Amino acid sequence: MRAEIIAVGTELLLGQIVNTNAQYLSRGLAELGIDVYYQTVVGDNKERLMHAIGIARGRADLLVFTGGLGPTLDDLTRDALAEYLGRGIELHEPSMDKIMKMFAGRGGAFIESNRRQALLIEGATPLRNDTGLAVGNALSADGTHYLLLPGPPREMKPMFDNDGSAWLKERLGQSFALHSVMLKFAGIGESGLEDLLIDLIREQQDPTIAPYAKEGEVAIRVSTKATDAEEAARKLEGTLNAIRGRTSAYLYAEEDLTLEATVVRELTRRQLTLTLAESCTGGLVSELITTIPGSAVVYLGGIVTYSNAMKMRQLGVPEALLEGLDAPGAISAETAVAMAEGMRAVADSDFALSITGNAGPAAAEEKPVGLVYVGLAERGRETRVEKLQLSGDREGIRLRAAKRALYMLWQSLMGQG
Amino acid sequence: MRAEIIAVGTELLLGQIVNTNAQYLSRGLAELGIDVYYQTVVGDNKERLMHAIGIARGRADLLVFTGGLGPTLDDLTRDALAEYLGRGIELHEPSMDKIMKMFAGRGGAFIESNRRQALLIEGATPLRNDTGLAVGNALSADGTHYLLLPGPPREMKPMFDNDGSAWLKERLGQSFALHSVMLKFAGIGESGLEDLLIDLIREQQDPTIAPYAKEGEVAIRVSTKATDAEEAARKLEGTLNAIRGRTSAYLYAEEDLTLEATVVRELTRRQLTLTLAESCTGGLVSELITTIPGSAVVYLGGIVTYSNAMKMRQLGVPEALLEGLDAPGAISAETAVAMAEGMRAVADSDFALSITGNAGPAAAEEKPVGLVYVGLAERGRETRVEKLQLSGDREGIRLRAAKRALYMLWQSLMGQG
Repeated sequence: MRAEIIAVGTELLLGQIVNTNAQYLSRGLAELGIDVYYQTVVGDNKERLMHAIGIARGRADLLVFTGGLGPTLDDLTRDALAEYLGRGIELHEPSMDKIMKMFAGRGGAFIESNRRQALLIEGATPLRNDTGLAVGNALSADGTHYLLLPGPPREMKPMFDNDGSAWLKERLGQSFALHSVMLKFAGIGESGLEDLLIDLIREQQDPTIAPYAKEGEVAIRVSTKATDAEEAARKLEGTLNAIRGRTSAYLYAEEDLTLEATVVRELTRRQLTLTLAESCTGGLVSELITTIPGSAVVYLGGIVTYSNAMKMRQLGVPEALLEGLDAPGAISAETAVAMAEGMRAVADSDFALSITGNAGPAAAEEKPVGLVYVGLAERGRETRVEKLQLSGDREGIRLRAAKRALYMLWQSLMGQG
Repeated sequence: MRAEIIAVGTELLLGQIVNTNAQYLSRGLAELGIDVYYQTVVGDNKERLMHAIGIARGRADLLVFTGGLGPTLDDLTRDALAEYLGRGIELHEPSMDKIMKMFAGRGGAFIESNRRQALLIEGATPLRNDTGLAVGNALSADGTHYLLLPGPPREMKPMFDNDGSAWLKERLGQSFALHSVMLKFAGIGESGLEDLLIDLIREQQDPTIAPYAKEGEVAIRVSTKATDAEEAARKLEGTLNAIRGRTSAYLYAEEDLTLEATVVRELTRRQLTLTLAESCTGGLVSELITTIPGSAVVYLGGIVTYSNAMKMRQLGVPEALLEGLDAPGAISAETAVAMAEGMRAVADSDFALSITGNAGPAAAEEKPVGLVYVGLAERGRETRVEKLQLSGDREGIRLRAAKRALYMLWQSLMGQG
């Protein structure tokens, strides 16, 4: 079954609200094994809404509407579809009773326009609204299915999850749901990963392989349709193994987990502690780590040394490294090592990560924007340091440097570093 | 001019990401006086993309695409539009040079697929990408305008705001543009602010007053249409003065500036320095401050003390405050004061902010989730402390605590604290 989601509301076209409903419905339909080929947003205008219905009917078997079922004159979805299909509108008595009871309970006078929320297109199945007043509509006509849901997410979501899904499952008969595994990577970019997997991506059919990047991390979703989890696992196994074999140095999770969450989990599992000495990232790594509930067990704390004085005083970085004509300077491998070792010594942690560099926008110490050194001091091992030349704006460089530092720690934890 | 926004990406149809780009573009186009009649989402599929182009062309004069300009084989927007228009594709040398330089700077081998990011549809104007590699495309053909923007919001937004808007303004010719002033508030919530301004909001006509909240800050946009800045200023003045008069304790900027940027600017102006001692915010305030270019002039650094040992060792918080049956504990006004004073003493800064509290998800020290103390130590003044009971999830509490600390500093800088 092919679906199109039609979100109705001028507020969406004006950018006053984000269309989170489309995401929710897309995900829900995917889980039912229904492909969404298009999403459309149209305003509260009957003519344009009917135009959108006509186009969607030509390219989908299922039209899922959200919005336009409320009491005001702007709420036109039901009227537009009824007119398009040449059907009448009828009152759904139980919904009307519910509305009247609500007004009676509130002690307010009944507002006539609310009657509109109890209307059904002729022949439609009513969908219960447990969190609001507008009744949903589900109907089929000439081989096309229509689902009309309210706009407010707190009404739309339960209606879709309950009556809406149940109605769709009846139409689907034996269903094949989409099963997928999310693979998360660090230490490699989107295009680098694609190069490693190019033949698998080109030749994909079933399972499908969908790469995507977000906020400094790279992910791949491997998906297949199956009747149950066991069949899905069998169908996914070959592709997953092929990807695992090529990407083991970068593949840090087989679920939708951030790199910082993975690092916290691995430290916790091993009962090891971490501290951070940050310069150019300004506390970003610390901030990422401490977003994870329970991080206090393994993360002792960190020092953000934005000035040379702080580097010397708090971390014991020798003045000779920082100042003087021949000194390597704050942005150097030597300083990264001294920061990491100083931090580890000060807090007696098992690991200490250090980051120093130039996140821009201007050159510092005559060193280019994007030059970053990451140090990792580890109890009982020699301190390592990595030199990076990162691209992007200040925010991007900081984020990439932070993720790279976490990747270095992850590698060490996995015995690869 | 009527526009349609076409967001391209299978991840949108699978519900993996929310289409925030459509909102951003809708708002931006509205500000240029361009009506958006439809938004469409289509997957990474050339045939369906060309179908969507055909439909949009029939109902809009301007098609704004976002997504599908990247390096991978899935990135098809440019190819699909070129094929639809029967035009060739050419290499944009400056973009190619930039890509090659980026790879050379990184010291990595050039990955051939990145060449795709430097391609232009024949006859298109290149749009600069300051935050990424893919060049944007702007072109007109047979009375229809096309704008091709990248998918990642951090690339799309500046490209639209800069080259994209400039190109559109040329096409629009002289018109009544929307002029607006952004007012930014801290220390007050969205509904609190609305209460202060309720009559102005209810009676608004021209100028319009649009409140909105984002990421722990509250803003109001006051807008009017005018032919030039002078006329706009005259039309906006009365409304602005009315708002200023009621909100001066909270109004920290009359432009779209973050609170941290304002604080850095005010510290710089007064040549004063800042340090931070963070516990529950885990480096978030430090991270916010250091996102601002030039913050190194006033921000010396900070210490994230996630463990009691770090609080004692690094900040000199007395053990008697932290441990023992009768101790006030880490989450207390006394500890917030000791942290701020300890931090200021250690670094000899003019100001030191401290934050300690419970961001959740579970109670700590038998203290409720959301209980946070913020301390402010200032050279030559008594240390102040503020007790907050914040609501929301872990992320929300941390962000609100961070903004509240910055607000406390801003108040002090403005002589109001």
